[in-house]
Amino acid sequence: MTLTRREFTRLSALGIAASVAPSLPAQSSSTKTGYAIIGLGRIADHFMAGILNTSNSRVAALVSGHRDKAERIAAQYGVPSESIYSYEKFDEIAKNKDVQAVYVALPNSMHAEYTIRAAKAGKHVLCEKPMSTSVADAEAMIAACKAANVKLMIAYRCHYEPTNLKAVQLIRSGAIGQVQAIESAFGFPIAAGEWRLNKNLSGGGPLVDVGIYALNACRYLTGEEPAHISAFASVIDHDGRFNTVEENVSWTMKFPSGIVASCNTTYGALMGGYFRVHGPKGWVAADPAFNYDGNRLLASFDGKQLDEPNPARDPYQFTAQADHFSHCIQYGLEPKTPGEEGLRDMRYIAEIYRSAGLTLG
Amino acid sequence: MTLTRREFTRLSALGIAASVAPSLPAQSSSTKTGYAIIGLGRIADHFMAGILNTSNSRVAALVSGHRDKAERIAAQYGVPSESIYSYEKFDEIAKNKDVQAVYVALPNSMHAEYTIRAAKAGKHVLCEKPMSTSVADAEAMIAACKAANVKLMIAYRCHYEPTNLKAVQLIRSGAIGQVQAIESAFGFPIAAGEWRLNKNLSGGGPLVDVGIYALNACRYLTGEEPAHISAFASVIDHDGRFNTVEENVSWTMKFPSGIVASCNTTYGALMGGYFRVHGPKGWVAADPAFNYDGNRLLASFDGKQLDEPNPARDPYQFTAQADHFSHCIQYGLEPKTPGEEGLRDMRYIAEIYRSAGLTLG
Repeated sequence: MTLTRREFTRLSALGIAASVAPSLPAQSSSTKTGYAIIGLGRIADHFMAGILNTSNSRVAALVSGHRDKAERIAAQYGVPSESIYSYEKFDEIAKNKDVQAVYVALPNSMHAEYTIRAAKAGKHVLCEKPMSTSVADAEAMIAACKAANVKLMIAYRCHYEPTNLKAVQLIRSGAIGQVQAIESAFGFPIAAGEWRLNKNLSGGGPLVDVGIYALNACRYLTGEEPAHISAFASVIDHDGRFNTVEENVSWTMKFPSGIVASCNTTYGALMGGYFRVHGPKGWVAADPAFNYDGNRLLASFDGKQLDEPNPARDPYQFTAQADHFSHCIQYGLEPKTPGEEGLRDMRYIAEIYRSAGLTLG
Repeated sequence: MTLTRREFTRLSALGIAASVAPSLPAQSSSTKTGYAIIGLGRIADHFMAGILNTSNSRVAALVSGHRDKAERIAAQYGVPSESIYSYEKFDEIAKNKDVQAVYVALPNSMHAEYTIRAAKAGKHVLCEKPMSTSVADAEAMIAACKAANVKLMIAYRCHYEPTNLKAVQLIRSGAIGQVQAIESAFGFPIAAGEWRLNKNLSGGGPLVDVGIYALNACRYLTGEEPAHISAFASVIDHDGRFNTVEENVSWTMKFPSGIVASCNTTYGALMGGYFRVHGPKGWVAADPAFNYDGNRLLASFDGKQLDEPNPARDPYQFTAQADHFSHCIQYGLEPKTPGEEGLRDMRYIAEIYRSAGLTLG
């Protein structure tokens, strides 16, 4: 039985690829950037499935504390057994010529260590958001990658997502005139027991996990950096979930042009993720804006009403992201969302927490 | 040609009632509360049209600086010529037995003076929002009405509007669980030359005019008073409109339970008015929430999706408002939105301005 790449991706997305195609031939094109996947949690599944739809990237190695799980996934993605690493032996990856880059999909507090170790091993780094659990760590990650002459990209998938990109284009085109105000929010009710609820691993609550999308969106939608930030945070549900991280954060920002933005994030409520951008000639919104798929662009300007659901299906954003980073590696270009982009968010997040009487990390 | 009340209201809403029915018989039931309309601007038109649909209220007198305009409207509403007052002669209204109440629809900075003069004339007062242009004025208005033993109600029409009322009921019923976070915004691009752009008349910009709806909504949706407020304001368009008032305000609030709310208001952009309320079991929204008609309730909880446009047409909110106040007058009840409700908003508005480095009034 031979599966096309497209068929495999669909089966993989359904979680049944392994049972149908237990040993896919290794992706072998020498023009493809080989990624070591560090951490085999949920988001790594999306990323690996996404990679299958690229023409320039492949899964070349796995790093995990669970050998069994890693071997199962290795078989699925055609990764040779010798390219499975434990965390202890991770540094040996320096010798693996099949690996040009790593994808850091670990709990947030481990991003800095593995980014720096990967850089020292001579590998380019694609690191999940939030970049780190402290500003100092983010700075150290950038410095380590610079010193090792490897690229560092933060996995801000919305920068590679057509609904968000079109919103930015509409705004930049002047369709709604000078932006005045933005609202954005992202949150969900979290289940007890998630590692994200342990501040030692996460560095913070919903703000670092999903609020960061609203924060980052306000920045790419305006093309400006917030000049002033003010925030409140709270815990309402004293049910054991929020012993170390906040449950809700509300913050407002003022940008140099005068644009104001108000944002919410929560781990305690059904919120979804959206933004609304208001100008004198119209408005642009996305709702949902930050989902893995099903995002929808809404706009009104020039007598036109836009309502454009994005038909692309997960893992298209992960495909676009891997494609972009591999392209940058292969052609010596700077990624659209380098470490500096992540560092800026970490500084704003630290400022939001400070304003709310909390601390990051 | 005889017009039914319904027909007249519809024609009136179209602005052509006067030409078709130049002299409607005076509304004469002695059980109806007679209102003196102070200020004959746009909102007074809505209010007077709204009164025609009540069974307990009538337009009994007009107060205006423009005798011609007042006579035209008097003919339309069956107000006798001797019940038309200039501002100078307003205090003579004390002797007018047809008038039990006044509706203060003047520029904001005149609300206090005419509320207090009306109270001294022994008339109940229904005053438009914002109640005043200073906290001290709001306090003086309450004191004057207390001293004169007349009722004072602030015209918060959304408290009498079914879309908003149903949202409150759903939340109080526990449909979405403990509220965690709210977003609300209201704004529009203002035309040059409006009196609202003159701070001496308005007391402030979009915050006192339309942002007050978002502020007030956060309070009635939660049933709580904000414990902490933080805000930013800005002027982006230096085109002469914003020489004395702000163009944009963004603010965040934290309530005693821990609920957080983030809000925006603008005079510089197409924003509309809406709110979104998030709980662990679902969400409730209205979009639009604050329009004269066409409001729409949206909610998701218990596997249910609500999408309920309110079919009622303007001036139904003004009808409900007049009906409520007349009922309170006739039966000696306290209105749902007394002066104290307006005073609270004035205090929060003063706090929002203070936080943003501005001043109210």
